[in-house]
Amino acid sequence: MNYQMIGFVISRILWTEAALMLLPVLVALLYGESAIPFLASIAALALTGLALCRRPRQTALYARDGFAVVALAWVGMSLFGAIPFVISGDIPHFINAFFETVSGFTTTGATILTEVESLTRSGLFWRSFTHWVGGMGVLVFVMAVLPMTDGHGMHLLRAEMPGPSVGKLVSRMSDTAKILYGIYLVMTLVEIVLLVLGGMPLFDACIHSFGSAGTGGFSSRNLSVGAYDSAYFDVVIGVFMLLFGVNFNLYYFLLIRRFKEVFQSEELRAYLLIVAAAVVGIAWNIYHIYGSVAASLRYAFFQVSTIVTTTGYATADFNLWPAFSKTILVILMFMGACAGSTGGGIKVARFVILAKTSWGDMKKMLHPNAVVPIRFEGKPLTDRQVRSVHLFLTVYLIIFTVSVLLLSLEQLDLITTFTAVVSCINNIGPGLELVGPMGNFSQFSWASKILLSFDMLVGRLEIFPMLLLFAPSIWKRGSIRRHIS
Amino acid sequence: MNYQMIGFVISRILWTEAALMLLPVLVALLYGESAIPFLASIAALALTGLALCRRPRQTALYARDGFAVVALAWVGMSLFGAIPFVISGDIPHFINAFFETVSGFTTTGATILTEVESLTRSGLFWRSFTHWVGGMGVLVFVMAVLPMTDGHGMHLLRAEMPGPSVGKLVSRMSDTAKILYGIYLVMTLVEIVLLVLGGMPLFDACIHSFGSAGTGGFSSRNLSVGAYDSAYFDVVIGVFMLLFGVNFNLYYFLLIRRFKEVFQSEELRAYLLIVAAAVVGIAWNIYHIYGSVAASLRYAFFQVSTIVTTTGYATADFNLWPAFSKTILVILMFMGACAGSTGGGIKVARFVILAKTSWGDMKKMLHPNAVVPIRFEGKPLTDRQVRSVHLFLTVYLIIFTVSVLLLSLEQLDLITTFTAVVSCINNIGPGLELVGPMGNFSQFSWASKILLSFDMLVGRLEIFPMLLLFAPSIWKRGSIRRHIS
Repeated sequence: MNYQMIGFVISRILWTEAALMLLPVLVALLYGESAIPFLASIAALALTGLALCRRPRQTALYARDGFAVVALAWVGMSLFGAIPFVISGDIPHFINAFFETVSGFTTTGATILTEVESLTRSGLFWRSFTHWVGGMGVLVFVMAVLPMTDGHGMHLLRAEMPGPSVGKLVSRMSDTAKILYGIYLVMTLVEIVLLVLGGMPLFDACIHSFGSAGTGGFSSRNLSVGAYDSAYFDVVIGVFMLLFGVNFNLYYFLLIRRFKEVFQSEELRAYLLIVAAAVVGIAWNIYHIYGSVAASLRYAFFQVSTIVTTTGYATADFNLWPAFSKTILVILMFMGACAGSTGGGIKVARFVILAKTSWGDMKKMLHPNAVVPIRFEGKPLTDRQVRSVHLFLTVYLIIFTVSVLLLSLEQLDLITTFTAVVSCINNIGPGLELVGPMGNFSQFSWASKILLSFDMLVGRLEIFPMLLLFAPSIWKRGSIRRHIS
Repeated sequence: MNYQMIGFVISRILWTEAALMLLPVLVALLYGESAIPFLASIAALALTGLALCRRPRQTALYARDGFAVVALAWVGMSLFGAIPFVISGDIPHFINAFFETVSGFTTTGATILTEVESLTRSGLFWRSFTHWVGGMGVLVFVMAVLPMTDGHGMHLLRAEMPGPSVGKLVSRMSDTAKILYGIYLVMTLVEIVLLVLGGMPLFDACIHSFGSAGTGGFSSRNLSVGAYDSAYFDVVIGVFMLLFGVNFNLYYFLLIRRFKEVFQSEELRAYLLIVAAAVVGIAWNIYHIYGSVAASLRYAFFQVSTIVTTTGYATADFNLWPAFSKTILVILMFMGACAGSTGGGIKVARFVILAKTSWGDMKKMLHPNAVVPIRFEGKPLTDRQVRSVHLFLTVYLIIFTVSVLLLSLEQLDLITTFTAVVSCINNIGPGLELVGPMGNFSQFSWASKILLSFDMLVGRLEIFPMLLLFAPSIWKRGSIRRHIS
């Protein structure tokens, strides 16, 4: 392990977080609130960063260094990001504040707050801003603004970016990061403008745009987006959530006019098909509740969009919907959005790969000597890629099952237990029953909150960085080092 | 496709079923009931068998012929096996009788009957006898008694026997089948004797021994094994269920004194470890209900044994147990018993393989150039074997999810919907809530009963025979034929 380099990268990340906290300081001054909670946290971040930062003798980062950096960075950011809530008294208990901050950075949107409208404005802003930062990734951000790990940044990007395969858009890592953040920023600004044009106050427009951009789901209103009861906001936010659930590489291809790659994307097609099928199925199933096709479609569309992208806003209490609709939503919770988007879940790309591989393997069962090539996004799928998707699914299911088992010690009903884990590990926010859209996570013990925080990080970082943090060999000094940059 | 040979094998299977129905005829005569329901069914089986039986010109069976034979045989046997229930009036509606018979042959034990004690004795006997026949497999039985497909029987055995890898015990298929059925018969007889010695009436002892041997779960009592409220019966049946959940190859090794292979079996160790952990966990969790360590252990042991082996007897209404215990039981429902046993579920062997593979793959993530050999039961695991386990898991999850989605159209609660499918696809019997140990499957529509029957067959035949029955290419004449016997 290259401890110096790891410390160096993490110090840069903490400083970046300190810089990002200047925004809520501004908000605090604007609304006449005390800026001390954030200024104190900035000081803590700056000093800790200083303590960790020694110029490394060598800058090489191995695969396992990448995992360690990403996992430590996310845990560290969440620990420091929780401090303002504790100081300001918005969330007095540290474990609760930590849960809320992990939920923010991982773009989960699960909350321990029973009501949010009494929080400080600066606290609300920071809470939602963590979504925006966590959505595209912190390391990606650091790479975009600080030229530091060029040549070795791929491991970091790979460990932080969602999806089975991450490619560079352009040859330089930092340029890739800049392009991604540029697209992200512009789309967020467009959403803010559209919401303000529809009559939403600027502060609320920022909050809800941060939440949809990062596919997080924290709202400034107790009733979430449903508080506005506006078809216009439903459509704008619903569509933008879907847009942020698309692989950002496709937006880059649009920019450089490689339209063919966009329209031929198998994942995009599958994603849109799943959304359409789910909307139609649910609208049909809830028609008797809302009494009109338009209303059923409106509520079905928003809820499908919010769940499949793992955002977690709500305009209806789907906990009260019929079993068929709830089942569709739970399936979508596992499915998640596209790889390379800000959404969570298992990702559509993995499902497409699993489906195509299984289809091919079954063909081979019937015709053992036949050659059945399996392609994805125009390229043949290697056995190695397929294996890594299978590995992901297996380990995901193991962590999921163990988490449900541990959480069941709370002795709540099985649906709450099951969907609380579904919701956290897939970075969604609401589940069903006690953790439904109108519920929250306050009833869990501190041990369960830590477990669920771990699950949120596992989901956001796609399992392995978090899991391998516990591998003894990652911390062993002098283990065989092989450079594989 | 070798249609003639398929017809030939199926005719033999129907004749075998006709012969097996002579037993309930005997029971009917013994108890002074009408034997007509069974005699009529025997006639129907004999005639249909005659219609299908033409001596085939060539006897080669390809992999896909094997799948087709097995799937068609099981559907056919269930269709004919349902007739006696309809004629006798025990289960007047054919769909219900079909569901019950599929549940019998697949050793599921899920029932649409709201009470069973008023059935005819011969009906009860046949209902439980299907468990015994289905447990070890019908084709295995046919192979044991009729020398017919030697040299090509491997595909049949492989398609019918549970578990990721099926090997011949001895070089001749028919001898392997005879050994397996011999062990099976002797163990069943020992259980009957032990139950009778404990004071159980012979009829009930047969019923419950058939049920535990096949890991089925049909009882002659409304309260299942709990009706006797006897610690002795609980222990005898509990232990025998566990014994029937062990890979039968290990019993053969015991017979020929290859003890080392038995004690070093990784699957057996994992199975016993899982059982022990589950018993301790549940006993701890339900201690406050039963008030004594002995009683908690007794009920925990029986319920763990019945669920992990996918039998489905009950001595306690675990639907009323706390969330932690229910979660453990639901996890065991997926787990299932050992490969090569009469139990259902995903099988312990597959979980061991998945766990070891994932462990190895994660090691490779940290040390990309390291060579990480993965072995199972003393032999190195090939990529092909691992891939087939992954394929199984993926397709299993897909069918499971689609089934839950379709069943949710019944608009019952999510736990009933979810566990009804868990219970059927893993061949268990009871689930939770409405389909809990004290519930039944009568409330479902005929469409759902057919869906669940399909799931039971999918579970018993380990997915592919049933699924590939729907592949167009399996029915295409003149498709490329490659002999791969």
